[in-house]
Amino acid sequence: MIDLYTSPTPNGHKASCTLEELGVPYEAHLVDLTAGDQKTEAFLSMNPNGRIPVIVDRDNDGLAVFESGAIMIYLADKTGKLLPTESKARARVMSWLMFQMGGIGPMMGQANVFFRYLPEKIPTAISRYQNESRRLFEVLDTRLGESEWLGDDFSIADIANWCWVRTYRWSGVSRDGLDNLDRWLDAMKQRPAMRAGVQVPVVSESLIKDEKAAKEFAKRARGNVQT
Amino acid sequence: MIDLYTSPTPNGHKASCTLEELGVPYEAHLVDLTAGDQKTEAFLSMNPNGRIPVIVDRDNDGLAVFESGAIMIYLADKTGKLLPTESKARARVMSWLMFQMGGIGPMMGQANVFFRYLPEKIPTAISRYQNESRRLFEVLDTRLGESEWLGDDFSIADIANWCWVRTYRWSGVSRDGLDNLDRWLDAMKQRPAMRAGVQVPVVSESLIKDEKAAKEFAKRARGNVQT
Repeated sequence: MIDLYTSPTPNGHKASCTLEELGVPYEAHLVDLTAGDQKTEAFLSMNPNGRIPVIVDRDNDGLAVFESGAIMIYLADKTGKLLPTESKARARVMSWLMFQMGGIGPMMGQANVFFRYLPEKIPTAISRYQNESRRLFEVLDTRLGESEWLGDDFSIADIANWCWVRTYRWSGVSRDGLDNLDRWLDAMKQRPAMRAGVQVPVVSESLIKDEKAAKEFAKRARGNVQT
Repeated sequence: MIDLYTSPTPNGHKASCTLEELGVPYEAHLVDLTAGDQKTEAFLSMNPNGRIPVIVDRDNDGLAVFESGAIMIYLADKTGKLLPTESKARARVMSWLMFQMGGIGPMMGQANVFFRYLPEKIPTAISRYQNESRRLFEVLDTRLGESEWLGDDFSIADIANWCWVRTYRWSGVSRDGLDNLDRWLDAMKQRPAMRAGVQVPVVSESLIKDEKAAKEFAKRARGNVQT
């Protein structure tokens, strides 16, 4: 059994969608970011960086794994699915997974900060991150024009990139004219495991401690569920 | 034999330091970023994202691997060094490698953009990325207070984080008071492979096509070599 400590964000969904796709039994625990749950001593003992998601594998001496990319690799290798063992196919999945970790994720994340969250509107910063995200979308579109999936087959690389790209409206990034990306976004959305994964964790406003924070939290959660 | 297409940047050094530490024979090829070498058709056929570093493994059907994190995992698994096979130790290395890929790298990279490169000075953006980088330094410092290395033993996670953290002055991020980080930075610098890796690729100004660009390139290269 896996314990998943998470919140309804793209990085959280990378973990829950992977667990759903692999069919690994798990229990999801909501980490209330607005209440600072991720900065408690208990949470920091699992992830010293104070960020979701984290998994704890009860069947592997209570091992805690943090960073969504590391979680995906761990779960895929544990089950022998979604990440090939053959060196060439494996390297291609790793390249596209890292493309999300170092590119799509940070750039869309910074677009969200400057476009959505920061009261001060800084046009240079907003356009920088939206333009860079769009450029990365175009790289994905090119790849998806020559291959059905980012790797040779459906893999954790698709899940990682999809969990971010699907929130393009929230980041204010256009997907206009990217037909291959559209085709892939749609194919991903058809997978029952993806539909289930992005509903995790269940966020009921009553679970959130502070009332004003609950509304903000729900708003952000909705923002991240919009393909 | 490995072909390494690279430039003197922290991400480039992640690949060259790993190759040096593993003792894998390789040939380094300078990619002149100021001349746009990374946007040529030949380069894009190796990495559709147009970014260094890229490796081509002549002994594995000419496989091209892009994204520095994917390159490190590929080389470590190919040689059976610097990345444990035991699941718990391996997961810890992966977590700290991803911490660099999604945290240290993007945050210091954005600090560089707003603090160094962009003519327009935007205090909110500069302090955002410098503060976040400092916070991440503190997370590393805490980990290095309880462990000699980021994983259980010296690994690709140390190389990845070191190649970025060592350029702290260029990003304008303080390491004051972080004694564990200091100890580790010094231990890393003592390794002959690290000292060799950060000299790759050799950049002679005559190799750079445009004279003005050559000076800028050399300045940036020096900026990245300063522990």
